[in-house]
Amino acid sequence: MTEGQSHPCRLSGEVDPQAHLVEVFELLGRRWSGVIIGALLRGPARFNELSRQVSGISDSVLNERLRALMAAGLVERQLADGPATAVLYQLTPAGEDFRAAFEELRAWSIRNQVIS
Amino acid sequence: MTEGQSHPCRLSGEVDPQAHLVEVFELLGRRWSGVIIGALLRGPARFNELSRQVSGISDSVLNERLRALMAAGLVERQLADGPATAVLYQLTPAGEDFRAAFEELRAWSIRNQVIS
Repeated sequence: MTEGQSHPCRLSGEVDPQAHLVEVFELLGRRWSGVIIGALLRGPARFNELSRQVSGISDSVLNERLRALMAAGLVERQLADGPATAVLYQLTPAGEDFRAAFEELRAWSIRNQVIS
Repeated sequence: MTEGQSHPCRLSGEVDPQAHLVEVFELLGRRWSGVIIGALLRGPARFNELSRQVSGISDSVLNERLRALMAAGLVERQLADGPATAVLYQLTPAGEDFRAAFEELRAWSIRNQVIS
């Protein structure tokens, strides 16, 4: 992680940091995307595991969001070890690097939650 | 800031933290919302100042986003001191409390940026 470009994501080729930040917020703001990353921060998971962990998401929306996160370079697929073939979704280094920001967001969300 | 509910925002009455986090990502993910908060983290600003600081936003969209952020309890208006009447937009305590999360998001966005 010492090289500045050791784990680039592919959100944008723009140099304007503000424009890039707008894109970051938009990607994460699509319903469920941030929560999917949160689930993957706990470790690689199969599609069905993700479907259970992200309450309320449909399989088609989960599939679409995973594709968007893969296109952005934050999520990747790999084949699981073992006798049975299984596809695992996992964070790329750029996705894993999101952990600190995610934890701050979650802490803020909990601190400022209205419990009715 | 010692009381858990000393600066609630009004995103949700839901108790489910995951559902709340989904709402947080959605609010911030609406184009410009996160960047508007970033501008207000530098201090209270007039509408026209915000319009200049958030490059590319139209006045009508800025107005709509400010209303949404006010409805969520993150932004408020106040009258500026001085002889000329002026409305300032500023963060509420819940909005100000977003600073750490915003800085982490911005740092992540810069670390993982592709410079083309």
